[in-house]
Amino acid sequence: MDVGSHGSRLDPWVGSYARRAATMTASEIRALFAVASRPEVVSLAGGMPFVSALPLDAVSGTIARLVTDRGAAALQYGSGQGEPRLREQIAGELMPLVGVATHPDDVVVTVGSQQALDLVTRVFCDPGDVVLAEAPSYVGALSVFAAYQVDVVHVPMDDEGLDPSALRATLDRLAAEGRRAKLLYTIPSFHNPAGVTQGSARRAEVLAACVAAGVLVLEDDPYGLLGFDGVVPRALRADSEEGVVYLGSFSKTFAPGLRVGWAVAPHGVREKLVLAAEASVLCPSEFAQQVVSAYLSEQPWWDQVKGFRELYRERRDALLRELAAQLPEGTRWTVPSGGFYSWVTLPDGLDATAMLPRAVTARVAYVPGTAFYAGPAKALGRASLRLSYCFPEPERIREGVRRLATVVEAELDLQATFGPSLGVRARGAVEVPGPETA
Amino acid sequence: MDVGSHGSRLDPWVGSYARRAATMTASEIRALFAVASRPEVVSLAGGMPFVSALPLDAVSGTIARLVTDRGAAALQYGSGQGEPRLREQIAGELMPLVGVATHPDDVVVTVGSQQALDLVTRVFCDPGDVVLAEAPSYVGALSVFAAYQVDVVHVPMDDEGLDPSALRATLDRLAAEGRRAKLLYTIPSFHNPAGVTQGSARRAEVLAACVAAGVLVLEDDPYGLLGFDGVVPRALRADSEEGVVYLGSFSKTFAPGLRVGWAVAPHGVREKLVLAAEASVLCPSEFAQQVVSAYLSEQPWWDQVKGFRELYRERRDALLRELAAQLPEGTRWTVPSGGFYSWVTLPDGLDATAMLPRAVTARVAYVPGTAFYAGPAKALGRASLRLSYCFPEPERIREGVRRLATVVEAELDLQATFGPSLGVRARGAVEVPGPETA
Repeated sequence: MDVGSHGSRLDPWVGSYARRAATMTASEIRALFAVASRPEVVSLAGGMPFVSALPLDAVSGTIARLVTDRGAAALQYGSGQGEPRLREQIAGELMPLVGVATHPDDVVVTVGSQQALDLVTRVFCDPGDVVLAEAPSYVGALSVFAAYQVDVVHVPMDDEGLDPSALRATLDRLAAEGRRAKLLYTIPSFHNPAGVTQGSARRAEVLAACVAAGVLVLEDDPYGLLGFDGVVPRALRADSEEGVVYLGSFSKTFAPGLRVGWAVAPHGVREKLVLAAEASVLCPSEFAQQVVSAYLSEQPWWDQVKGFRELYRERRDALLRELAAQLPEGTRWTVPSGGFYSWVTLPDGLDATAMLPRAVTARVAYVPGTAFYAGPAKALGRASLRLSYCFPEPERIREGVRRLATVVEAELDLQATFGPSLGVRARGAVEVPGPETA
Repeated sequence: MDVGSHGSRLDPWVGSYARRAATMTASEIRALFAVASRPEVVSLAGGMPFVSALPLDAVSGTIARLVTDRGAAALQYGSGQGEPRLREQIAGELMPLVGVATHPDDVVVTVGSQQALDLVTRVFCDPGDVVLAEAPSYVGALSVFAAYQVDVVHVPMDDEGLDPSALRATLDRLAAEGRRAKLLYTIPSFHNPAGVTQGSARRAEVLAACVAAGVLVLEDDPYGLLGFDGVVPRALRADSEEGVVYLGSFSKTFAPGLRVGWAVAPHGVREKLVLAAEASVLCPSEFAQQVVSAYLSEQPWWDQVKGFRELYRERRDALLRELAAQLPEGTRWTVPSGGFYSWVTLPDGLDATAMLPRAVTARVAYVPGTAFYAGPAKALGRASLRLSYCFPEPERIREGVRRLATVVEAELDLQATFGPSLGVRARGAVEVPGPETA
């Protein structure tokens, strides 16, 4: 996994790079995508939505009409803030689903919500600034924070999500050190990678702690509509217009290949985000935005979301049943009530990072827990791994778990013979309840 | 033009922004886009290509087939470096046109070439670093440099483009001050905004000066295929694989609404760019890339480029003829041999920035020259303005120039009565020959 090193070729520009370039390193997920794309490997690694479930002929017709009827506008430059009609649909149709009343003026369309993460960090964070993030946290956000030389401080979570008392303790500790966090980056619903969801009481506590400490909440919510019981959790943003930047995405409910996400931001922040976006890409793709807008208005998109929920629930069930049936005692995992992921913690002493090459040899791929922690905290993830059930068919998921179980059993045999590969038990990772099935 | 100020609303986060946020300000072009969109105004301001000339029914068919036949792949996440087939087409079909032999591995697809500008600056420039740029330079690049707190040093150009002796003098001066420029940002062909093109002898001199000084050349070439005499200028990159990052774009030859551009970079730089791109947007739109790729393989795209050349040549001719017929003595302009723009310098004493509100009142819009200079150098652009002939029909262009001439005449009358509005004659701007027509 030494992608990003210069290998044996000489780089004449090695003395010219910015300081931040030193912190731009390849994530574990990046190298894995190459490995996991081999057809014989069951990939439980990537977070690719199952876009084959979309009605492609109908989508094709919608897009063809768009180009024929309004192509000259759809293929032209657009507004830096995003297509006005799409912003109206986001404010009028999407945001009320998560309990948020907002105006199209406060919506900024971005190149996937990844760009929104980049822009918020660009606007708020100088090198050395502190950002709080769950332990574990989304690997793509950690890449952004690394690129801006931000100091990520992880806050423990359990099976109900981010722990408010741990958050308060962290804020107090930072205050005692004379440091203030600029942002709390959090995924309250159907967490990536932890697969847990925060209840409403905890959300209120998190918000109150951040307001008291003057910390802006960056609420990332790509999976909010994909709850398996049909309930859409109320966003933090619904209870604080000025204290939260909310990030939404069409990548999981429609199509990631369009790269259309959005931010809903306090007024002053929104203006900065638009300026940063214009410098960064001039404007998001007008064509992709008009495709999304036409899809929302012409196609039964809400039925499609319900269809995705059913599809992913079936796959989650397949995963959980097979984990319970196959994984050895001492293995624990979270039970996601929505989204794409379960977080698995291996029996004491096993190391998911060290085990990965053997898993790939056994033709199953996952993302090791270390990918979801920043800097020195990476060690906290060594006992854990993320399993994705979003893309493979249920039978492939079951086969993947069977292969994984074989690898874990073999690791336990090795440990019984040679001692643990993880000398010290990792702490600070998600504390999960014992094995359960849905 | 106080877009970007917080107006009367209180921003509770004003104390939390990063230092770089202070340098993110609205460009003159941004405010102008709002004004110029009124139908009664003849806009000679924006650089929008005339996408209505595309065969929209054929494009619609190509895209519909793409979604029907390969939608599940086209709507999915893609590679951070860009779609392999499109990179092959760029390396195999596009780059040879500008004299460049390259491998698809050294191509990075970006969200328009604007994102490539952002990524190169991100990878190379710390706050306070020096970037050299032509005087005047592309406003979007100046926005990027401002966002990264870069110190832009302008280098004079004349009607043959960037002046190599001025470049050498600037490099010597910087060396004497103990400073080194990280990048030279240059648009050698059909310059935006100056409308001039550099000959091959000068290109060699520029390259030699940069190699000697250890300065990476960032060659921006969105207009290279749009030369009116049918000759495609040879790129700087063709003569230096290690010393140049080349930026290309489909925005002017196909459709800006797709946001597909690319960088061809030295190997080590390319790796950094991919990492920076992944942190920034995960991957460019797979859908937009596959649309471009299908367009290149299914449609007669080279004939379309030739059609665009004819269309823009006709509009340039309309502009130049009307300038010669209408503008008062003492007005000068460049004669573009390709691209979208002519750079007009007003008679002595007139101020294009101060004149703009009166021009808009007279229902014609342009971009004042100050937009194309960074920081304190802005004053160098006050006597000049950029006229775009790419979007309006020839009759509208002629009407726009007639309105502009009326405004300039009125300014001269005012000056004759009350004295010059520009106390000191601006220097350092493009030195252009006297009025000519094509």
